Amino acid sequence: MSWVGMFVFVVGVLCYAQDSDFKAAATNVAGAAYPRVDSASRCQFRLKAPDATKVRLNFWSGPKLDMEKQPDGYWTVTTPSLAPGLHYYTLIVDGVEFSDPASHAFYGGSKDASAIEIPEAGVTYYSAQPVPHGEVREVWYHSSVTGSWRHALVYTPPGYDVQTRVRYPVLYLQHGGGEDETGWIRQGNANFILDNLIASGAAKPMIIVMANGYARRAGQTPPDLAGKPFGSPEAMRAMRETAAAFEDDVTQALIPFIDTNFRTLSDRDHRAMAGLSMGGMQTFQVTFDHLELFSYIGGFSGAAGSLGNEKFDPKTTLNGALADPAAFAKRVHVLWLGVGTEEPANMHAGIERLHTSLVDADIKHVFYESPGTAHEWQTWRRDLKDFAPRLF
Amino acid sequence: MSWVGMFVFVVGVLCYAQDSDFKAAATNVAGAAYPRVDSASRCQFRLKAPDATKVRLNFWSGPKLDMEKQPDGYWTVTTPSLAPGLHYYTLIVDGVEFSDPASHAFYGGSKDASAIEIPEAGVTYYSAQPVPHGEVREVWYHSSVTGSWRHALVYTPPGYDVQTRVRYPVLYLQHGGGEDETGWIRQGNANFILDNLIASGAAKPMIIVMANGYARRAGQTPPDLAGKPFGSPEAMRAMRETAAAFEDDVTQALIPFIDTNFRTLSDRDHRAMAGLSMGGMQTFQVTFDHLELFSYIGGFSGAAGSLGNEKFDPKTTLNGALADPAAFAKRVHVLWLGVGTEEPANMHAGIERLHTSLVDADIKHVFYESPGTAHEWQTWRRDLKDFAPRLF
Repeated sequence: MSWVGMFVFVVGVLCYAQDSDFKAAATNVAGAAYPRVDSASRCQFRLKAPDATKVRLNFWSGPKLDMEKQPDGYWTVTTPSLAPGLHYYTLIVDGVEFSDPASHAFYGGSKDASAIEIPEAGVTYYSAQPVPHGEVREVWYHSSVTGSWRHALVYTPPGYDVQTRVRYPVLYLQHGGGEDETGWIRQGNANFILDNLIASGAAKPMIIVMANGYARRAGQTPPDLAGKPFGSPEAMRAMRETAAAFEDDVTQALIPFIDTNFRTLSDRDHRAMAGLSMGGMQTFQVTFDHLELFSYIGGFSGAAGSLGNEKFDPKTTLNGALADPAAFAKRVHVLWLGVGTEEPANMHAGIERLHTSLVDADIKHVFYESPGTAHEWQTWRRDLKDFAPRLF
Repeated sequence: MSWVGMFVFVVGVLCYAQDSDFKAAATNVAGAAYPRVDSASRCQFRLKAPDATKVRLNFWSGPKLDMEKQPDGYWTVTTPSLAPGLHYYTLIVDGVEFSDPASHAFYGGSKDASAIEIPEAGVTYYSAQPVPHGEVREVWYHSSVTGSWRHALVYTPPGYDVQTRVRYPVLYLQHGGGEDETGWIRQGNANFILDNLIASGAAKPMIIVMANGYARRAGQTPPDLAGKPFGSPEAMRAMRETAAAFEDDVTQALIPFIDTNFRTLSDRDHRAMAGLSMGGMQTFQVTFDHLELFSYIGGFSGAAGSLGNEKFDPKTTLNGALADPAAFAKRVHVLWLGVGTEEPANMHAGIERLHTSLVDADIKHVFYESPGTAHEWQTWRRDLKDFAPRLF
């Protein structure tokens, strides 16, 4: 390291050639010239693997493309134009799925995966702008529910440390399945989205709490699910146990910790919860079980779980909270659903069916469709941009 | 995702079998049973790669071992006992170096690399203990030196938000070459080290600022270093330019930002700087050029650069700061050097030579050797544990 390490870095950062319109992706590690993106949102990928026999580029919500071996031992491929936003991907080398050494890692799919950022032309709301910036704080709280120290991220708005008598409303914001509490910052740029919304006056200054969405009760024996397929009674019970432990962790450990350690407005009128995919389902579970704690509810590409799959009875579902539309509209200030137009058909249909069911039941709510985006972070960035200004 | 994503997670976390004394490493992603560590500090690694012809386990500061193909398509290997601490590694599959999908990513070697944590028996100073915890804050500051928004991490001690009239001393703490500002938290656990030292009364509550150690001046044209080897005049000039830009960024942009936005004690008696490897060299450059700003100096496995390689003249070196030992001892409250006994011979010899030169020159300083550890994070955790209690 030392001089050599520094030199390797300097050479890496300063010396790669650029040609045509392609530029190194913003998601690359320092000094990596590939992957790169052009102004038509095409991407070029490259991997040196002279001894490999097959290399495949694997976008999780996008094309899967065979890469082509070049005489110099590099494998390369150019994609068609891709939708804007952050796309998870991996490289499959002779059957083994790896992260691209040239990409920064983003926790998704239960691993530190690769991702590439495709800029959206003319769009600045989710990048660092010359406006006041909030902070993102890592905190550790002890949960008597899980019997462990738990890690969460907390966004505090610009000025939080200066205006020491001001108290703020709080949005609890959850990641998706296979992701963790870092997702809304690393992938979602939630801090920049709020910085920009607050600077323009579109959203009120607020605290955002991002918790780890996995929990197991202290002392709870892990079930043995070997050979028990998805949907089996054992697997469903294990999932419910996890969800219930998370619900208790949020309401019994996390919220008290936040209200003790941050200058919050701690009544239900100043507390919101939203989440994406699995986090949306968790949001519906936690908030509808605890309407004494929450008055704003957002489901981003994920909402009331099984409710989305069939016409529901508003008299009995969600603890009967929807039985009286007028009372509900008074109690829940915003009920918000979103989905991307390019999400998998059953996902899109499920959320839309929930929306139409709510319309039929006269339940006041917002339904937002993100044009041209899939079950991916660009959808959720747009969701947050639409949702946050409606809060508090 | 959604239900399926949640299910995959639940199955992953709950269902792997454990045998003998081996336990999944703390550095693994959720649900990964391998790599795993036993009580003798041996590690087992596993990768499914049925079509690969050669898989090698590559510890950067440790053994390089061929993995063995099993009939089920998994490649496995068990290491000999390893030194405690966090060890970077990669897997080399048919000649291509990848991160292990089962490990969390840690930024080192200019990429998101894998690492495995080997517990040190009976040692708790760098893990989360039942004591008050500080926060780690991400901040963004605009640097007129680089003409860009820059990202830094800031540790605030327990109680910072409660004792709103207390002001704190500041330690600037730098990462090594190929790492970034996340290293001291992700790899080093600097926050837990300080939490524990503060809780026991061994160290004073302090703010720690961790900046990104790479900088280029606004508008500075990147030099073309193609074909210019390490040590060539062009490469050395490029490195000096980078180091000078970083020095100006710290002194002209970062320190003013921190002193404006945090409740600091902003005189030189309450400002320290330390760093590891490349960060140690940067520390010596920044502090000896600006003794009007700093009074505590730490070099962890890296110090005065070329000074370490030859006997130096105390009258002229480091801007003549060492010419009068008595005056120096008054001006610099702590000068601290550390190195691991298992570091590469030239690294160890260089730091030790600097130490003996300082002894010969009657310069008061601390020299610490970390027993049994290499140019790795366990050395630097111990360095911080010894250094921090001597501050302020």
